[in-house]
Amino acid sequence: MTENSPITYDQSVVLGTETPLALDSGASLSNINMAYCTYGTLNEDKSNAILVCHALTGDQYAASRQPVTGKSGWWDLMIGPGKILDTSKYFIVCSNVLGGCMGTTGPKDNNPETGTPFGLDFPIITIADMVRAQAMLQDYLGIESWFSVIGGSMGGMQVLQWASAYPERVFSAIPIACAARHSAQNIAFHEVGRQAVMADPNWQGGDYYSRETKPTAGLAVARMAAHVTYLSEAALHRKFGRNLQDRDNLTYGFDADFQVESYLRYQGINFVDRFDANSYLYITRAMDYFDLAQDHGGSLAKAFDGTKTRFCVVSFSSDWLFPTAENRDVVHALIAAAANVSFVEVETDKGHDAFLLDTPELFKTVQGFLKSSAKSRGLDE
Amino acid sequence: MTENSPITYDQSVVLGTETPLALDSGASLSNINMAYCTYGTLNEDKSNAILVCHALTGDQYAASRQPVTGKSGWWDLMIGPGKILDTSKYFIVCSNVLGGCMGTTGPKDNNPETGTPFGLDFPIITIADMVRAQAMLQDYLGIESWFSVIGGSMGGMQVLQWASAYPERVFSAIPIACAARHSAQNIAFHEVGRQAVMADPNWQGGDYYSRETKPTAGLAVARMAAHVTYLSEAALHRKFGRNLQDRDNLTYGFDADFQVESYLRYQGINFVDRFDANSYLYITRAMDYFDLAQDHGGSLAKAFDGTKTRFCVVSFSSDWLFPTAENRDVVHALIAAAANVSFVEVETDKGHDAFLLDTPELFKTVQGFLKSSAKSRGLDE
Repeated sequence: MTENSPITYDQSVVLGTETPLALDSGASLSNINMAYCTYGTLNEDKSNAILVCHALTGDQYAASRQPVTGKSGWWDLMIGPGKILDTSKYFIVCSNVLGGCMGTTGPKDNNPETGTPFGLDFPIITIADMVRAQAMLQDYLGIESWFSVIGGSMGGMQVLQWASAYPERVFSAIPIACAARHSAQNIAFHEVGRQAVMADPNWQGGDYYSRETKPTAGLAVARMAAHVTYLSEAALHRKFGRNLQDRDNLTYGFDADFQVESYLRYQGINFVDRFDANSYLYITRAMDYFDLAQDHGGSLAKAFDGTKTRFCVVSFSSDWLFPTAENRDVVHALIAAAANVSFVEVETDKGHDAFLLDTPELFKTVQGFLKSSAKSRGLDE
Repeated sequence: MTENSPITYDQSVVLGTETPLALDSGASLSNINMAYCTYGTLNEDKSNAILVCHALTGDQYAASRQPVTGKSGWWDLMIGPGKILDTSKYFIVCSNVLGGCMGTTGPKDNNPETGTPFGLDFPIITIADMVRAQAMLQDYLGIESWFSVIGGSMGGMQVLQWASAYPERVFSAIPIACAARHSAQNIAFHEVGRQAVMADPNWQGGDYYSRETKPTAGLAVARMAAHVTYLSEAALHRKFGRNLQDRDNLTYGFDADFQVESYLRYQGINFVDRFDANSYLYITRAMDYFDLAQDHGGSLAKAFDGTKTRFCVVSFSSDWLFPTAENRDVVHALIAAAANVSFVEVETDKGHDAFLLDTPELFKTVQGFLKSSAKSRGLDE
């Protein structure tokens, strides 16, 4: 967001005070704190609201300064006046996911039953649970139907879940770089990350909140392992190759001789300041459990049966975490469900992370789709 | 090896007693213990010897029972009477690499200067250093020229280094699933593994040998992260998909619900019994440092200038750790150096690990190449 952007709200609301949220696990949560930001102004008939869903390590600060890092929002390139998600036209909502650690109820918050942090007593949550909580927020905001729901990676999973669970509440949907289920390889990488956290003696079975030390070393390793998967070999080669870090020759030691090592260590160290290790466990687990076809008797098309939502599916050619083939499976299911769907594979060597980066073809695709959707919705241009 | 196989020797020799081994780092090592196994019988003119080079976590027990795990050798499918590396024709030598932990001098051995284990005082070693030590073993065995040098992954790097550094000592060379330099992505994965080890408080800066606890948790995480890269997404999908482990439903917890999680945990736990964490650091570093072109003024072709060695390069179509393109770079350099080279990309969905598995097209390729090489060498068929 630029300095002249519309008013930005950093808000929170307590949801599920009367009716608790029933989770997939069978557990329930009441008095859920839901932290969210909004950008732009909701129009009179509340038809211009766009829900932005964040990824695994994202947060509600999609287009405003992240309070811990002081950095600009993770989708600042995308959201703002005159930008793709144009805050002079649309009312953008982005909430921290259930199980998160930036204000929405998660494992680091107090368990009302004990008065101490949940830790591993927090119930396992699913993508569907995250979306249920967002639907409660939608009710609270009095928005009958989102003009659009958009997100990349785990954000894209939420988009698919939204369109499947609440078709009448989603006018258009833009799932980016995601899949309708988490692959064995992706579960494997998540498990490596969880084991790295759990191997840290400071994790203490998840009960570290009252202690001085946190499982930062394990969480940093988890982040490093994950970060490699967000990039492509081509991107790593272009950015770093075998270039040395601030030196002319190999040191014949275990210092970060190579730029790529230095970069990864930086990613790990910076992450632990802004993220809770238990949230990392819970959110990765939610992604692992995601399998939209399984929830519909094995048929992904059934998940979208009779949908009137307009879809725009976007994949990246060099994304090996959520390869184009898996995005295409979603498109095929949507076509089988007779949905209105367009699909673009963006040619880029930036890997999975392309959805967060300056990727003009992504911007153009989303912009064009929103424009035609706005016309259908009767939104003033 | 079958029970009727030729005598198998599990031997060791102390090398560098008179002239220490000068390492790339500038350090030197004397009185190097070199542990090796041999299979088959050396012929009279010592022309039938094949050097098998092992990968990162391999050892000299290529075709005999691994003493720690009790399992059969890692290339038991390949080596034995009547097998591809036929011990009734050839004399197979496989030595534990310098820096290893199965008998050859490495960080867990005593530093003669202090009388206590080297730990991180062990000098950084390179692929070239490993090969120099193997050349000392070759001298000791009185073998002027290997009939063939063969290996996959890091073993393949050693093959390339052998052919480049000692062309006159290598009649034929079979580098499998490797590259002439370690890519940025591969360095990144190695760095994740090293950071996992170093994050374990039991690592103690590498000085854990006299303690009761070892950095097993960190090493297990490193192994798990690496193991994912050895397989292909297709292989993981075929083997595990999203199948659950000994249960019918998700448990909504952090147990290993999915078979792939259970498999990975098993890989991690089993590895730490047979491998030294510091050796893992040193050997991954050696791979990171490998860059054969860099050692020859940036020209890979120069690394093989004037070579008379016959080459057979093998890659696997689903190997994303050492993709076919990187193997092909080696082939192009060999062609530019006017070498005698054949190249096969084996179609398989098994990923990098295919070199260790029952991969008939690999076997056929190596068998055919060895047969024609034996004819050239004048070895009796």
